[in-house]
Amino acid sequence: MLHNLFKPAALTLAAASLFAASSVAAETKENDATATTERHKVKATTITENLEFPWGIDFLPNGDALVTEKPGTLRRVGMNGVISNAITGVPDVVYKSQGGLLDVVIDPNYEDNNWVYLSYAEPAPEGEEGNSTAVARGKLIGNHLQEVEVIFRGQPKYKSNAHFGSRLVFSPEGHLFITLGDRYSAMDDAQTLDNHHGKIVRIWPDGAIPENNPFVGKEDALPSIWSYGHRNVQGAAIHPMTGELWVTEHGPKGGDEINIPRAGENYGWPEATYGVDYDGSIISKKTHVPGTVQPHYYWVPSIAVSNAIFYTGSQFPDWQGDLLIAALKASKVARLDLEGERVMHEESLFEDLVEQRIRDIAQGPDGAIYLITDNRNGKLIKISNADE
Amino acid sequence: MLHNLFKPAALTLAAASLFAASSVAAETKENDATATTERHKVKATTITENLEFPWGIDFLPNGDALVTEKPGTLRRVGMNGVISNAITGVPDVVYKSQGGLLDVVIDPNYEDNNWVYLSYAEPAPEGEEGNSTAVARGKLIGNHLQEVEVIFRGQPKYKSNAHFGSRLVFSPEGHLFITLGDRYSAMDDAQTLDNHHGKIVRIWPDGAIPENNPFVGKEDALPSIWSYGHRNVQGAAIHPMTGELWVTEHGPKGGDEINIPRAGENYGWPEATYGVDYDGSIISKKTHVPGTVQPHYYWVPSIAVSNAIFYTGSQFPDWQGDLLIAALKASKVARLDLEGERVMHEESLFEDLVEQRIRDIAQGPDGAIYLITDNRNGKLIKISNADE
Ligand SMILES: [Ca+2]
Ligand SMILES: [Ca+2]
Repeated sequence: MLHNLFKPAALTLAAASLFAASSVAAETKENDATATTERHKVKATTITENLEFPWGIDFLPNGDALVTEKPGTLRRVGMNGVISNAITGVPDVVYKSQGGLLDVVIDPNYEDNNWVYLSYAEPAPEGEEGNSTAVARGKLIGNHLQEVEVIFRGQPKYKSNAHFGSRLVFSPEGHLFITLGDRYSAMDDAQTLDNHHGKIVRIWPDGAIPENNPFVGKEDALPSIWSYGHRNVQGAAIHPMTGELWVTEHGPKGGDEINIPRAGENYGWPEATYGVDYDGSIISKKTHVPGTVQPHYYWVPSIAVSNAIFYTGSQFPDWQGDLLIAALKASKVARLDLEGERVMHEESLFEDLVEQRIRDIAQGPDGAIYLITDNRNGKLIKISNADE
Repeated sequence: MLHNLFKPAALTLAAASLFAASSVAAETKENDATATTERHKVKATTITENLEFPWGIDFLPNGDALVTEKPGTLRRVGMNGVISNAITGVPDVVYKSQGGLLDVVIDPNYEDNNWVYLSYAEPAPEGEEGNSTAVARGKLIGNHLQEVEVIFRGQPKYKSNAHFGSRLVFSPEGHLFITLGDRYSAMDDAQTLDNHHGKIVRIWPDGAIPENNPFVGKEDALPSIWSYGHRNVQGAAIHPMTGELWVTEHGPKGGDEINIPRAGENYGWPEATYGVDYDGSIISKKTHVPGTVQPHYYWVPSIAVSNAIFYTGSQFPDWQGDLLIAALKASKVARLDLEGERVMHEESLFEDLVEQRIRDIAQGPDGAIYLITDNRNGKLIKISNADE
């Protein structure tokens, strides 16, 4: 069973000891539940429910998943439900409220370089206050992150435990996009360029600033900024045909957004929003402000958009090219049937199959769809095709 | 009260006799119901509930409405709820199932020429079988249509009482668009150009064929055809910025569509559809067929789209530029928040205010929204702004 858990054959024997005794193989035959959707029948299989507030998931070339747990641990998860011990070398994180160890993504050239990238809430230096979103990378060798280096530090450190962002995605050209949050109480900072609050950042994987970033050389602007005027962006995906970044952004009450962040553009927060007050009455804020870009699509009421993927697998042919958006509050996946960039239709998927808040969504190497849930006994759920 | 019901002052006195004793002024103060929507508070007022299966509504320059009743009558309706006697001169119609007197639209230059256009199910000539959608016009003088002439006859006459279309709308250049249906049992005809089944037609108001219609001079094609591959198009509106035609099209079970019919294009029916079988299972038909145009937007399940308007009034500022689509089955109005042509969001409006199937929607000269309901005691409902 373990023979394919690690690529290097020499590690196979040693690998056995990396797996914690507390992990159990999922009873995949017993817990299958099926549901009908507009275009496909689907089956949900719980791979494991032994993840502690998992936040991010990405797949290794061998088919195992790497999963972050918000308290600060990174683990391998086999598709048989076996969970590894904590991978060592993960940076210290501020685990409080929305902060902790957040996203994980493997390098596009992982098979050559073993780089794994992590976003997290980083504490201020000893004796100082506050925290900010940071991104580190390390080479995953066995169960250890080695040569760990911080490649991005959000500025400034700030006293808040909310709105860290922070999804990671690589562009086709090899840039790393980092999505950030406005830190809630610092929302006005989203409109100024001398800080990272409410920004999307574009860097090279080693932390270098791309020379053609939109604010390079501009006074009072951080050169890592790609776009601004965002609230709390926790979803990011690259459109498979255009190669452009698409993001999902939490609104206040109402006004969750999809945006297509383009270089140097202002996405309006907090000047423009479709959000409403917490009592349901219409907010006084504007929906349209000159110089700011309208969302590509938005939700009222909020579904609490976490991450999103463009589905490109063969397992669900009628979903190819569609945007699948995971939702925390709504415990579902919204499918946007896209024709190019155009939203033709929205369908709610998996509502009857998932009871927990969905924190991340990923497409597996097998074309199945994988969900992790935001829970002390967080699940990894596999959604596979059950068409007759 | 009657002084502004007719434009020509000389007719004012005579007009009193045109109103039937059965009509009663609506109790506008007593029946106001309010509802909250995402952007506006609204108030619904029933102007009358004495219309017999009303189908189409348009406004005269003086603020009265012209309303068709499917059994074959055309009436003026004052905004005080007073309903006129049947206007004379209306062509004979086949009143059966979906057939009858259908849409009404006044000429863009009505104040100069008094032309009123009617679509209807026209019987075959004496001794022959079947029917088809036709369009006639007449000059409305007092309570009479005069100089009535048929300007369009759907070909062929066909034995069916379903899927007649048939909405009428003028283009900015003065063309008249006529939306048609596939007659249900003749659905395959929608893919061939030698008939009017499942077509949208573009003519001049006198029935002449525009020289630049896409199939003029093409063999085995009717020159009046603008676009094809439609199922049953009962909604039509001109986009206020692009000047293009947008239509709403009934799908089977599922697959109601918005299309932007362009010259000579094929919109796919019945080769391509998002509709599903009546038992809810996925239909075998394809959603994508080369050479056919995808819908701009679609609904699954169907809401039963009747007519649609682009809202351009001042009464609901946050709805300006939005597409409001009336629904029969869903008894609601879907609001598509548009940014140019792009659908950013869908909201369901008036669900708690209207219990009956909504057959037509219009924007009044006052910027209020008017709905008529598909009922033996059909209503004319005014939706006005109730923001505080
Ligand atoms: Ca925005
Ligand atoms: Ca179609």
